[in-house]
Amino acid sequence: MTELYGAIEAGGTKFVCAVGSNPEDLTEVRFSTTSPSEALARAIAFFDSYRGRLAGLGVGSFGPIDLDRASPRYGYITSTPKPGWSNTDVVGTLANALDIPVAFDTDVNAAALAEGRWGAGVGLTDFIYLTIGTGIGGGVICNGRVVHGMMHPELGHSFLAKHPEDTYRGRCPFHGDACFEGLAAGPAIEERWQKAGIDLVEDHPAWALQAHYVAQALVNFICTLSPQKIILGGGVMEQQHLLSRVKAKTHQLLNGYIQAEPLLSDIDSYIVVPDLGNQAGVLGGFVLAEALLGIDER
Amino acid sequence: MTELYGAIEAGGTKFVCAVGSNPEDLTEVRFSTTSPSEALARAIAFFDSYRGRLAGLGVGSFGPIDLDRASPRYGYITSTPKPGWSNTDVVGTLANALDIPVAFDTDVNAAALAEGRWGAGVGLTDFIYLTIGTGIGGGVICNGRVVHGMMHPELGHSFLAKHPEDTYRGRCPFHGDACFEGLAAGPAIEERWQKAGIDLVEDHPAWALQAHYVAQALVNFICTLSPQKIILGGGVMEQQHLLSRVKAKTHQLLNGYIQAEPLLSDIDSYIVVPDLGNQAGVLGGFVLAEALLGIDER
Repeated sequence: MTELYGAIEAGGTKFVCAVGSNPEDLTEVRFSTTSPSEALARAIAFFDSYRGRLAGLGVGSFGPIDLDRASPRYGYITSTPKPGWSNTDVVGTLANALDIPVAFDTDVNAAALAEGRWGAGVGLTDFIYLTIGTGIGGGVICNGRVVHGMMHPELGHSFLAKHPEDTYRGRCPFHGDACFEGLAAGPAIEERWQKAGIDLVEDHPAWALQAHYVAQALVNFICTLSPQKIILGGGVMEQQHLLSRVKAKTHQLLNGYIQAEPLLSDIDSYIVVPDLGNQAGVLGGFVLAEALLGIDER
Repeated sequence: MTELYGAIEAGGTKFVCAVGSNPEDLTEVRFSTTSPSEALARAIAFFDSYRGRLAGLGVGSFGPIDLDRASPRYGYITSTPKPGWSNTDVVGTLANALDIPVAFDTDVNAAALAEGRWGAGVGLTDFIYLTIGTGIGGGVICNGRVVHGMMHPELGHSFLAKHPEDTYRGRCPFHGDACFEGLAAGPAIEERWQKAGIDLVEDHPAWALQAHYVAQALVNFICTLSPQKIILGGGVMEQQHLLSRVKAKTHQLLNGYIQAEPLLSDIDSYIVVPDLGNQAGVLGGFVLAEALLGIDER
């Protein structure tokens, strides 16, 4: 018999809660990320109706979060700029109310795990799941497991060289125009051009600049992580023409230095869109829950 | 009884060959990296005197190298600019002559493995060994194992933002002034200032600029790999004052975003010098040989 798990994608704008075990077997509910007490209470009410039938719960959360099991704040959302959410004990609140084991990771790590299990990362030991939307974040799988290291990667805050013709001041509260998110997340595009990305026509100069920044970031991720594939999602990447520009620009910037077949001759299979769409995060919760219960993550 | 291994650090300027098993038990010989036939013949002659007593040989090599076991060129040095060394079958030549199993990896991955076993990386699951000298390269340990992924990381070719006052054209044949090595390896310092690094006084503007570039690279490695520690070696880093500048600048550029204790309050224990000095590479050969023979790498 298949185990039943609970899963939460705790995103900065919405919560997705699901019960099931895989993409073909799940029941889900979505609601806005209001206050911590309200959002967590709604999640608890949803899972409560499955009391006694859930083996565990996996949570992929917006961050930054504390993943250090030795820390008194393990399982917390920590220093987020999202009003009201700083210092929220996510794991403790859920585990106490539901009385089941709760696994915890970043929303992007969860999405990466789900793509690795059922999506574009199946069969790979090393890949990146990168999302470019309201923010920029990434989950990294390395040597077959999700990367935590000291804390967790923060791909959106790696630094980029600014384009010489770009005079925009940048939007990252920590790094201004120095980092990827400050230059290339959705709000930066909108502020720079005074128009939402969705309203910028395909031949607007915004897109060549955007491809320049995304490609530069990918070059750095390729040089540091040597991924077998890059899965590139998020609202900004839904502009179809942008993906082609990013591929061409990445190839151009690398300039043949990395002599690996996927980069030299098959970049269409190397930089890809997610297979699981907007369900990757919550499906990752199932993978996290399984892992917590002793089944290997991948 | 302790197994005896052979080890080679095949560097771009010198070969180090050793027999032993650990830092306290080894016999070594060093010679210049002349032609492939001459250098490999000298290595074979050295190990031949131990015939019958070596369980295996581990080689850490300059690159790029082919690590794909499914490739017809597995074990080769591939597209190196070093004259005469392109397309050299290192593993095949050694294995045929010595009739023992030969393990193969990059010189920096080997050094990282050695630091992880006996040096500054002991007990860590995620760290970087970065060397800044004639070139810039790094070995990456992630989730307890060396990172290969698609090929192997190329930390020296990740891109950096050029300092607005730096007019140097850069020295990377592939990336000009766009990448870390093009801007900050020893030959770039020498060409930019028309003086070798070793001859530039401590308050020369070269060092503030150098710290700026190294720190920016470290910020990117921290954001992508989330290492528990960065081990920073190589000839350029032997300028003692430079390490302090790099630490201060890294802290400044991160600007408190990564809320991890080592970065916030203990950067002296986070960015460190190698423990094994110029023996890390060859000692890594022992770790590679052990791993090949079925003993876990770390």
